Amino acid sequence: MASPPPARPGDRIETISTPALLVDLVALEANIAGMASRMRASNLALRPHAKTHKSVEIARRQLAAGAVGLCCQKVSEAEALLPSGVADILVSNHIVGNGKLRNLAALAEKVRVSTLTADTEHVAQLSEAASAAGVEIGVLIEIDAGDARMGLMDMAQLVPLAKAVEQAPGLTFRGLQVYNGPFQHLRAQADRARASRDAAQRAGTARDRLATAGIACEIITGGGTGSFAEDAEIGAFTEIQPGSYVFMDADYGRNFDAAGEPYRPFRQSLFVLTSVLRRSTPEIVYTDAGVKALNLDCGMPDIFERPDLVMTKASDEQGRIEVRGSGPAPALGERLKLVPSHCDPTVNQYDWMVAMDGDAVAAVWPVDARGCVL
Amino acid sequence: MASPPPARPGDRIETISTPALLVDLVALEANIAGMASRMRASNLALRPHAKTHKSVEIARRQLAAGAVGLCCQKVSEAEALLPSGVADILVSNHIVGNGKLRNLAALAEKVRVSTLTADTEHVAQLSEAASAAGVEIGVLIEIDAGDARMGLMDMAQLVPLAKAVEQAPGLTFRGLQVYNGPFQHLRAQADRARASRDAAQRAGTARDRLATAGIACEIITGGGTGSFAEDAEIGAFTEIQPGSYVFMDADYGRNFDAAGEPYRPFRQSLFVLTSVLRRSTPEIVYTDAGVKALNLDCGMPDIFERPDLVMTKASDEQGRIEVRGSGPAPALGERLKLVPSHCDPTVNQYDWMVAMDGDAVAAVWPVDARGCVL
Repeated sequence: MASPPPARPGDRIETISTPALLVDLVALEANIAGMASRMRASNLALRPHAKTHKSVEIARRQLAAGAVGLCCQKVSEAEALLPSGVADILVSNHIVGNGKLRNLAALAEKVRVSTLTADTEHVAQLSEAASAAGVEIGVLIEIDAGDARMGLMDMAQLVPLAKAVEQAPGLTFRGLQVYNGPFQHLRAQADRARASRDAAQRAGTARDRLATAGIACEIITGGGTGSFAEDAEIGAFTEIQPGSYVFMDADYGRNFDAAGEPYRPFRQSLFVLTSVLRRSTPEIVYTDAGVKALNLDCGMPDIFERPDLVMTKASDEQGRIEVRGSGPAPALGERLKLVPSHCDPTVNQYDWMVAMDGDAVAAVWPVDARGCVL
Repeated sequence: MASPPPARPGDRIETISTPALLVDLVALEANIAGMASRMRASNLALRPHAKTHKSVEIARRQLAAGAVGLCCQKVSEAEALLPSGVADILVSNHIVGNGKLRNLAALAEKVRVSTLTADTEHVAQLSEAASAAGVEIGVLIEIDAGDARMGLMDMAQLVPLAKAVEQAPGLTFRGLQVYNGPFQHLRAQADRARASRDAAQRAGTARDRLATAGIACEIITGGGTGSFAEDAEIGAFTEIQPGSYVFMDADYGRNFDAAGEPYRPFRQSLFVLTSVLRRSTPEIVYTDAGVKALNLDCGMPDIFERPDLVMTKASDEQGRIEVRGSGPAPALGERLKLVPSHCDPTVNQYDWMVAMDGDAVAAVWPVDARGCVL
């Protein structure tokens, strides 16, 4: 059922069929090592989010660099990544539905599994699935991060909910998660720092309230690529769960650091290689990367090392690129490297990821958990 | 490598794991038969665009209803759909790059293949690939539809380009394509009709210019789900290549017909089934269908038969739905049917499509050409 791979190991970049998802191995390894050493220096556990890459090969590298386990967003995603050797998975989502609850319990027969809740009725469902399978599932309570999303908002319910988890057969209370995705993309560093402090304060308040009731939190998890430095300093978290740092994307590049410079704590390792299909006018070309080869919910991709070019439109299978500088428009067949605006859903478009060593294809990796929506 | 299927034949809708792509078989069959009979009545060939569904099962039904062949947008997509029994494929795109040209030529060993060009350098590349493989590839010249996209704009180049195709070894000149995707989504029927007339006039002018030079067009192709009725009336086209009519989507539903009513010449057959993961407040719920289970370039999906609910945000794996009416918010685990805003890229997110007979699962079909970007 898989689509054909765009290249073979040993190929040169010139012969890769396009559009293709490329990963620069040197940048990838630097990002993995960089985040691992920063978290070690902060005495924080690192639990990378695998929803970004969905790749056994990348998960393996993160674990080898010292990650305590992985975050996954879907049970089927976690299943697909078991060959990485991961032994501790946090499914950082609320798992609802009998089929998925059965699969979650089956996963807990193979590795240590934790997941999230914020609702007593949901706790009963988790408990029933764990009990039926005779397994133990760890449960963290998700605390609202200030955006009325999935987390618990009414702190009066916190202790009763934690007690419900503690008393539920098959469940073990493990702690708290506070995470707000959009906060990672606040443009000014001061705003991200404020959001981090706010999330940490919410987590700290909840932890203290539980402690008063005699309930300890083994794990307080949250944080991401946009705020990890602030998250690490604040001291509320026991672990950080960033995903995008392995790849980075154009949207993170539109954030600013404390000095007002573009936010680039990691290297861009992810690209979509595209070819010019047609030079329509001297200023307009069309490429083979459109909506099905990218994801545009965070805007258009940047064009790597070509400040003279701007992508302005996309149809399902074609992208329109316009010349803004004085240079000539790219020629028929010319290749361009796009920097995806949003890495996670872009990766999820592809069955294959081409691992590049410079301009040579080192390996072609399957995107193992692609399409694992369940 | 495929993700697990969300259901098995015989399952009821209540037990399908979510998010899942559903196809209502009765509506699908009605749409396939409806378009086929309208095109027959207009004496026009119907060449459905398979980029919408990427499904062998649906292609088979379209061919059985009298389609003359299929349009595909990618060579690998065409390859994946060969088991439908299709014998005549128009790859309605400009195929560039040695690997893809080789695959195009290999495809022409199996079925009758045509493709598009608008450039003499590209004609030479097509000819080289066809000659090397010893096959014949049909070529249509794409004429600009008024949006400086992929088509030929300078009509002075038309006859020389057609002659270049005619003289190129391995190539057969077959005719013209004029297509403009965005025109299909002009809201007012009068605007779509005007765009249709304009496209037809461009095609007619080009055809006449070629005829004067002694070059005949076997095929003049174009048109789509938003304009097929006008396209059929105008008389310039020999065939129409609509895709979305098999499924329809919320964006087409935002078009208007001649009477100013919502444009509904076909039935909505495509849905994304989603479950409520959390009722965050009495007015806000979160579901399991986000950016990776939908495609939001045409806006948010509608919520089928629930005018009291509006989807307002999506993260990668979650959707936020807000209550606008007086009714209660959906409960934990409650299922909702979303009407995707843009059918083609939504289908391309999924490995599986659940064919529904009412509320029973009739079959689970692979999305055979999913991810076939090459």
